[in-house]
Amino acid sequence: MVAAQKVTYSEISPSEFFYRNRDLAGFSNPSRALYTSVRELVENSLDACEQEGILPEVSVKIETAPEGAKAGDQVAYVITIKDNGPGIEAKYLPNAFGRVFYGSKYRLKQSRGMFGMGGTMAILYAQITTNKPVTIASSFDGKTNHILDMLIDIQENKPVILKHDTKPATGTGTSVQLTLMGDFLRAGPKITEYFKQTALVTPYGNITLMDPDSNVLTFQRTTSTMPDAPSETLPHPYGIDVEALRRLIKQTQDPNLVKFMTNNFHRVGERTAVKFLKFAGFTSSEKPKNLSNEDAVKFVNALHQYDEFLAPDASCLSPLGEEIMEAGIMKELAPEFVAMCVRPPSAYSGFPFIVEVGLAYGGKSIQPGIKLLRFANRIPLLYDEANDVSFKVINEEIDWRRYKVPQDAPIAIITHVCSTKAPYKTVGKEYLADRPELERELKNAVREVLRKLSTFVSHKGSMEFQKKRFNIYAKYLPLIARFSMELSGNRKAPDYNKLLKSQTVQDLVAEGAEEPPTEARANPIEEKETTPTSQKVKHNGQERLEKYSDSS
Amino acid sequence: MVAAQKVTYSEISPSEFFYRNRDLAGFSNPSRALYTSVRELVENSLDACEQEGILPEVSVKIETAPEGAKAGDQVAYVITIKDNGPGIEAKYLPNAFGRVFYGSKYRLKQSRGMFGMGGTMAILYAQITTNKPVTIASSFDGKTNHILDMLIDIQENKPVILKHDTKPATGTGTSVQLTLMGDFLRAGPKITEYFKQTALVTPYGNITLMDPDSNVLTFQRTTSTMPDAPSETLPHPYGIDVEALRRLIKQTQDPNLVKFMTNNFHRVGERTAVKFLKFAGFTSSEKPKNLSNEDAVKFVNALHQYDEFLAPDASCLSPLGEEIMEAGIMKELAPEFVAMCVRPPSAYSGFPFIVEVGLAYGGKSIQPGIKLLRFANRIPLLYDEANDVSFKVINEEIDWRRYKVPQDAPIAIITHVCSTKAPYKTVGKEYLADRPELERELKNAVREVLRKLSTFVSHKGSMEFQKKRFNIYAKYLPLIARFSMELSGNRKAPDYNKLLKSQTVQDLVAEGAEEPPTEARANPIEEKETTPTSQKVKHNGQERLEKYSDSS
Repeated sequence: MVAAQKVTYSEISPSEFFYRNRDLAGFSNPSRALYTSVRELVENSLDACEQEGILPEVSVKIETAPEGAKAGDQVAYVITIKDNGPGIEAKYLPNAFGRVFYGSKYRLKQSRGMFGMGGTMAILYAQITTNKPVTIASSFDGKTNHILDMLIDIQENKPVILKHDTKPATGTGTSVQLTLMGDFLRAGPKITEYFKQTALVTPYGNITLMDPDSNVLTFQRTTSTMPDAPSETLPHPYGIDVEALRRLIKQTQDPNLVKFMTNNFHRVGERTAVKFLKFAGFTSSEKPKNLSNEDAVKFVNALHQYDEFLAPDASCLSPLGEEIMEAGIMKELAPEFVAMCVRPPSAYSGFPFIVEVGLAYGGKSIQPGIKLLRFANRIPLLYDEANDVSFKVINEEIDWRRYKVPQDAPIAIITHVCSTKAPYKTVGKEYLADRPELERELKNAVREVLRKLSTFVSHKGSMEFQKKRFNIYAKYLPLIARFSMELSGNRKAPDYNKLLKSQTVQDLVAEGAEEPPTEARANPIEEKETTPTSQKVKHNGQERLEKYSDSS
Repeated sequence: MVAAQKVTYSEISPSEFFYRNRDLAGFSNPSRALYTSVRELVENSLDACEQEGILPEVSVKIETAPEGAKAGDQVAYVITIKDNGPGIEAKYLPNAFGRVFYGSKYRLKQSRGMFGMGGTMAILYAQITTNKPVTIASSFDGKTNHILDMLIDIQENKPVILKHDTKPATGTGTSVQLTLMGDFLRAGPKITEYFKQTALVTPYGNITLMDPDSNVLTFQRTTSTMPDAPSETLPHPYGIDVEALRRLIKQTQDPNLVKFMTNNFHRVGERTAVKFLKFAGFTSSEKPKNLSNEDAVKFVNALHQYDEFLAPDASCLSPLGEEIMEAGIMKELAPEFVAMCVRPPSAYSGFPFIVEVGLAYGGKSIQPGIKLLRFANRIPLLYDEANDVSFKVINEEIDWRRYKVPQDAPIAIITHVCSTKAPYKTVGKEYLADRPELERELKNAVREVLRKLSTFVSHKGSMEFQKKRFNIYAKYLPLIARFSMELSGNRKAPDYNKLLKSQTVQDLVAEGAEEPPTEARANPIEEKETTPTSQKVKHNGQERLEKYSDSS
C-alpha cells in the first residue's frame, strides 16, 4: 500500500495549456515547429488578403540568426513574413498575436485558419526557444505603420509590449519577424513543398520564399481572377444544439418563433418555419423568450429529426473553381492531361462543404505512381497523409482496374475540401476525418476524373496506333506510287499526298470520339462512310465484343 | 473582385473553444460522445483511488432517461458513476468539474488524465444536448457529502451552482450523474470492450457496468496488490526550455547555480552540476537571479547539448509490473500461454517512460489472428488504432516469419506505455505518436515476447509429437508384450508399464529444454545418455541444420 499524497488543484491559461501540449498544435519538434510556424503565418497573410479581395503579395525570409545560436541539430533562425493585406487595427494588434483564443476566425465562415491560434503559437514557440521578442508591424490605414516589440506572458495568456513605434507607411499590410530554434535541414524540403502546393491553389498570388542559403523560390501569379471571398453564414438547423439555441434566444428580439427561425437559421423561410413548428408541436406565434429549458431541448431534438430542411447552400463557401484550379495545376505541374471535377455542395452536421478534385497525368514533373496532394480550405496538408479521408478513398475505395490506368502511370490527384468547418482531427490541421458525407463526395469526384483519364488514355493509345500507321503509310505510299507509275508507264506518280493528308493524326482526334477500340479504326474507308464516327466505332466495338464473348 | 468585409476580433473562453471544436476532445458524434464521457469519468475515479492507494470500487450505470427524449438514433441517457476515492474538497468541487483548464493533473506525474478537461467536457456535452444540470456528490472527510446541481457557463468558462446540499456520508468518494443524448446502440460494444480492457490492467479493482437493458458486467478484483502510486518529479534538463528556466529562476532562492540545478533538475547532483556549468561556460557561484535573458538562452541550449546527464529515472512512474499484468491477462483472456516483457526505463525529450508488453496465446477467448490491445498510463486506447505507434511496430517493423508463429495463430499483444507525459497526438487520447525512442522500446519488447512464444510453440509442437508417440506405445506395447509372452511360452507378460511410464509426457517437459527440434527427441535412449538435455538437443539440432544446409 502507498502513502496518501496531497492533491492540489490549479488553473492554467490557454497559452499555458498549449505551451505544455504543443504537440497538439503541430509543434512537436524543431523541424515540425519551423514548418508549422512558417505555414501558420503564411495562412494568416493569405486569409487576410483574400478576405478583402486583395491580390496577395506574400514574402517569407528564413535567415540564420546573426548570433548563430546552435544546439545539436537546432539553429536559431529569423523568420520574416510580409504581406499586402488589409493590416490590423493598432488596438487589436497585441491581442491578435499575443493571446491564445483571441482572433478573427471564430465565425461560421470558410478560412484557412480555424482555431485562431496558429500565429500566437508560432510566437510562443519562438519565445520559449530563443527568448527573443517578436516584432510586428502593421498598417491598417495605409498611412501609419505600427511597430511592436512584444512577448507573451504565457501564464497569464496576454501580450507584453516592450516597445511601440509608429512610422509612415506606403500602403496597408502586416509583417511579422520572429526568432526561433528550428531545424531547417529537416524542415526545408517540407517548406518548399508547402510553397509549391500553396502556389498550385493560389495562382492569383505572388509568393516568395528565401531560404537560409539565400535561394529564392518565386511563384508569380498567372491569373488575376480571385475566388469570391467567403462570407459568414447563419447556422443550419442540423448544426444547432441546446447551447446555441439558448444563445440565440437570449439575444433575439423577434416577436414569434417563425420570425426567430427565418432570421437566425440558414435557409429557413417562412413556409419551412411554419411547417417545422407544426411538426415539432410549437405554436408559430409563441415568443422565443418564452421557451423553457425543456422546450429548448424539445425544439433542438425536433430540429435534428425534421428531414425537410433545405441542405446548406454553398454561397458562403469559396471553392477554387475549375478555372483557377486548372490554372494552378498547369502552372505548377505542367501535365500532359488534366481533368477536373467540382462536386455540388453537400453538408455534414449542418456545415456545408464542397469537394473539388483535379487529376494531372504525364508531363515532366509528375513521377510514375499516384501522388496525392491534399488541400482543405486552400491549405496544403503535408503531414499524416495515411490518416486522411482522401488517402482512404484513393487507396481503399477506388477500383483502379476499372479505369484501365496503366500501372505506374504518372498521376497526381489533387483534392480540395472547402467548408465553413473543415473536420480536422487535430489542432495542427494535418488531416481530415472520414465523415461519411465527405468520403462519398470525394469518392464520386475521384471516380469522375478517373473516367476522364480513362477516356484520354485509351484515346491516346488509339492515337499512337494511328501515328504509327501514318508513319508506315508515309514510308510506303511514295514507293507504291513510284512502282505504280513505273508499272503503268505513266510519267507522273499519283498524288499520294492528298491521301496521306486525309490520314493525319488531327483528323482522328475528332471531338466526341469515345474510347474507340483500336481495331475498329483499322479500316479508315469504312470509318468515313458513317457519321458520327464515334457511334460507328462504338457499334463495331460492341459487335467485336459479342463475338468474343460467344467464343469464350 | 469582391467587396471588403469588416474583420471583427473576439476572445473566446477555453470552454467555448472546446465546445466549438469538440471533435478535438473525442466528442465527434453521439456514439463517440457517450463512449468518451463514460471513459473520462471512469479514468478520473481510478486516478483518484490510485493516487491515495485505495483499492478502487467503481460502478457505472447507464439508463434511458425517464422522459425518454429521442432524436433519430440518439436517446437521452442518464449516466451515474460512483467511486470510493478520496473525494474532492467542497471548495474545489465546482471548478474541478465546471471549468476547462482547471484540475489536479497539471503536474509532472503519471496519470490517466493529462489534459485536465475530460470530466468537464462530458458535463459540457451533456448540457448542450439535454440542458440538464449535472449532479455531483463528494465526500472528502468521509462524514459529510456535498451534493451540487450545476451547469457550466460556457462563454465564461465557469460553473453555475443551482443547488448545494449536504448529507451525512459513510466514507469518502465521489459520484457524478449527468444526462446526455447518446447512441448506446453504436457505443455499447466499445464501452463493453473498454471495461474489459480496463479490468485487464486493473485486476486490483472492483468495476461494475450496468447498461440500459440492466445487463450487469462485473469485474471482481483478483489481486490486492496495487502498483505504487506515481509520484511527482522534477523536470529533466533535456525537457527544459527558456520559459521553464525563467519560471524556475523567478521562484528560486538558491544562492548559486550549483544549488539551483541540484534543487530543481531531475537527477542532477553536485558533481554533474559543476561539470555541466563548466561545459556551458557559467561560474558555479553565480546567482541564478543574475542570469540575463541571453544567459538563459545560452544555458538552455547547453542543457540540450550536454550529453552526460543521467537519463530520467522511473521512480516517478507506476508501471503495472509483470505480476499485475499477468494476473490481468490470465483473468480476462485466460490464454494457454502468456509471456511478458517489462523494458527498462527510457526517456524522450526529458520525459521518462516505461514500455510493458504482454503476449497471450491460445485459449478460448482469443480469436485467430493478431489482436492488439493498446494501453497508455493504464487507459485502454480503442480508437484510431492504425495511427498508433504500437500498430506501426507490429505491422511494419516485426519480421513475423522469424518467430515461426503459425499463420492465424490466436494471439493478443498487450502494449502498455506509462510516462509522465504520454505523447498523445489528440486531446481525445486515442493514439500515441511514433517518437523514435518509444518505437525502439516497443520493438524490443514485442520481439522479446515473440521469442518466448516461438520457444513455446515449437516446444508445444514437440510435446504433441511425444503425446502421439506415447499413445502409439500405449496401444501396441501391451500387444507386443502379449505376443512375446505367447512366443516365449512364459506365463507372465513383461512389465511394459515401467517402460511406458518412463515415456510419459511429463518427463519430456523438462525445464530448460530450449526449442527442441521434433526429430531430435525421436530416440529417447540417446537423450537420456547426456545431461543437461537441452544442450544435447541443441547440439543435435545444430548438426541437423548443418547437414541440411550442406545439401541445399
